[in-house]
Amino acid sequence: MPGGLTHPARLDAARAILDRGDLDALLVSRTANKRWLSGFVLLPGEEPTARWSGTLLVTRDRAIVLADARYTEQAGGQCPGWEVRLAQGEMHVEVPSLARQIGVRRIGAEASVLSHAQWAALEAAGLELVPEDSGLDDLRIRKDADELGAIERACALTDRCFAHLLETVRPGMTEREVAWQIETFFRASGADGAAFTPLVLVGARAAMPHGHASDVPVRPDAPLLLDFGCQVDGYRSDMTRTIFFGEPDAEARRRYEAVREAQQRAFEAAAVGVTGRDVDAAARDCLAEGGRGEAFTHGLGHGIGLETHESPMLKSWDRPLQAGMVFTLEPGVYLPGEIGIRIEDTVVLEAAGPRRLTHSPRELLLSA
Amino acid sequence: MPGGLTHPARLDAARAILDRGDLDALLVSRTANKRWLSGFVLLPGEEPTARWSGTLLVTRDRAIVLADARYTEQAGGQCPGWEVRLAQGEMHVEVPSLARQIGVRRIGAEASVLSHAQWAALEAAGLELVPEDSGLDDLRIRKDADELGAIERACALTDRCFAHLLETVRPGMTEREVAWQIETFFRASGADGAAFTPLVLVGARAAMPHGHASDVPVRPDAPLLLDFGCQVDGYRSDMTRTIFFGEPDAEARRRYEAVREAQQRAFEAAAVGVTGRDVDAAARDCLAEGGRGEAFTHGLGHGIGLETHESPMLKSWDRPLQAGMVFTLEPGVYLPGEIGIRIEDTVVLEAAGPRRLTHSPRELLLSA
Repeated sequence: MPGGLTHPARLDAARAILDRGDLDALLVSRTANKRWLSGFVLLPGEEPTARWSGTLLVTRDRAIVLADARYTEQAGGQCPGWEVRLAQGEMHVEVPSLARQIGVRRIGAEASVLSHAQWAALEAAGLELVPEDSGLDDLRIRKDADELGAIERACALTDRCFAHLLETVRPGMTEREVAWQIETFFRASGADGAAFTPLVLVGARAAMPHGHASDVPVRPDAPLLLDFGCQVDGYRSDMTRTIFFGEPDAEARRRYEAVREAQQRAFEAAAVGVTGRDVDAAARDCLAEGGRGEAFTHGLGHGIGLETHESPMLKSWDRPLQAGMVFTLEPGVYLPGEIGIRIEDTVVLEAAGPRRLTHSPRELLLSA
Repeated sequence: MPGGLTHPARLDAARAILDRGDLDALLVSRTANKRWLSGFVLLPGEEPTARWSGTLLVTRDRAIVLADARYTEQAGGQCPGWEVRLAQGEMHVEVPSLARQIGVRRIGAEASVLSHAQWAALEAAGLELVPEDSGLDDLRIRKDADELGAIERACALTDRCFAHLLETVRPGMTEREVAWQIETFFRASGADGAAFTPLVLVGARAAMPHGHASDVPVRPDAPLLLDFGCQVDGYRSDMTRTIFFGEPDAEARRRYEAVREAQQRAFEAAAVGVTGRDVDAAARDCLAEGGRGEAFTHGLGHGIGLETHESPMLKSWDRPLQAGMVFTLEPGVYLPGEIGIRIEDTVVLEAAGPRRLTHSPRELLLSA
């Protein structure tokens, strides 16, 4: 049985955390965890105004979704089998009141999601809170067939977007214009939207990657790094390609091939039972052999699903990788002031080995 | 002297908090507060990947901006007069290390911004943290001439967008298509982007406002509520208009005029020295006189600036309003299953009284 858990099984898996932590209940606040566990959807633009709607309280025998008046109908539709509870007031009033009512006191909650002010207010209202972040996040780590299908659709759209960019991006266009073209393509193609603000970086700018595209134009004598992905039915894709608009010099070509080789080595190293750390090391060692170890300044890759960055973070993952995990492989070489090259695919690990979900060419591409 | 503080004066105002709270330092993490105080910019798409770059530590004699290697150059350029400190590690290691080095221990920090996990880790590393949220947020409450100029540019673009929508939105277009048109207009017009995901709600859907536009089409027999704004140089606008595509019935017209009258009464009540609560009451009482008090289910308005929602929240603001404050006036009438009407302007309060910054017609508009 490859992959993750179906919906009722998801609730059972969450409840197993209760016994492990000797907890009365779980309080679930992370948007991705709310959705995975109950089906309750908050789109990115909604999060700031939704307040804490969709927060879940899970006990051994109850599964409750809290929602203010705007969201009760949605919760009823999206969360079959869950009790929907109208919660108009503040979280630090409503949750303790519900907890008292159903007789729970020791509650596992996401300390990395709740603000300290929220946490302190819940404790002041008499709850005993226990940080339970990785337990909840790791529930989502193996993807089931539906989840994988959504990720595959997002990856296919990402490949189509890249083909579109090869046809339309020309020297003179600014990084910002290219980024906007990516966002527009995804929206016009039926995606929920981009998975994150696209990184579009010309030449040496790719060596110190900032999060935002600028008014710097694409140049015929410099590579262009494109790091982008989209969201389909809540699930994400993530791909990076570095393309050239004129013949690169021999050194740039060697660097590119070194990154491509490192990514392939990582791909070949990935297998069920191997640690994430070892897959990271495969790419790192490959670059080090060529004297480029210093220039690979970040981790090899990250899990991806309902969030762009989630478990497993390969570089620090010292447990065995499992079938159904989906993650990126994205080695890079960064030489400040000079050049930045990265090649990234989204990959699913299956019993037989890894399978790329993004298929855009990895060979050095010379655009017109 | 209307309005806020110039940059060196901003630092002085922040330092005044140190004495009030008997603090050694302030740790500033909220993106808007970082920018207001130091000039350090993080765009919305950057926040998830910037980690904690741009975090500020302010003592009585030092002003330090922390940044990882990707952001040190930017910090040097954007934050003249600030020491830039390279911080590659985790916040709960770097900040205590810096604090020890410069001899500070009791630190005011934003408990509503830091996660409980961050807060607990900083305390475990020996810092004494004191929640200092409203003190920092309220520093930004009176806008200076530069800030007001940016807000006025954002508002002018919002008016232009509305004029564009009047020409282009027709029955049959979906809410989602209209929302995308708003976002596209702002990006194509040079704004940083939309200030928030536009609310585009047809007919009764406007009575239970969700955050996201749907595939429901604009109808000739139903009003269309448009709540949108943009961001220019970091500063926001926010405006709502409710338009009709066919002649509304007499009851809908009366409801519309009741909302318009309530908004005008609030506008006339706003003055330096009056409390926000009293301005809220002016609109609320006006609707109550017409028997529609129950249908106005939210606060009258919110401060706006580097954040879409910031101080003062009028309904709960029982201190006197001051010259230089910028806020929205947005009464509404919501009848579940039936109709939702809201009219909202962004307004600046000046010594002589309030002045609208959004100027789109408030009269009932019949679109073709």
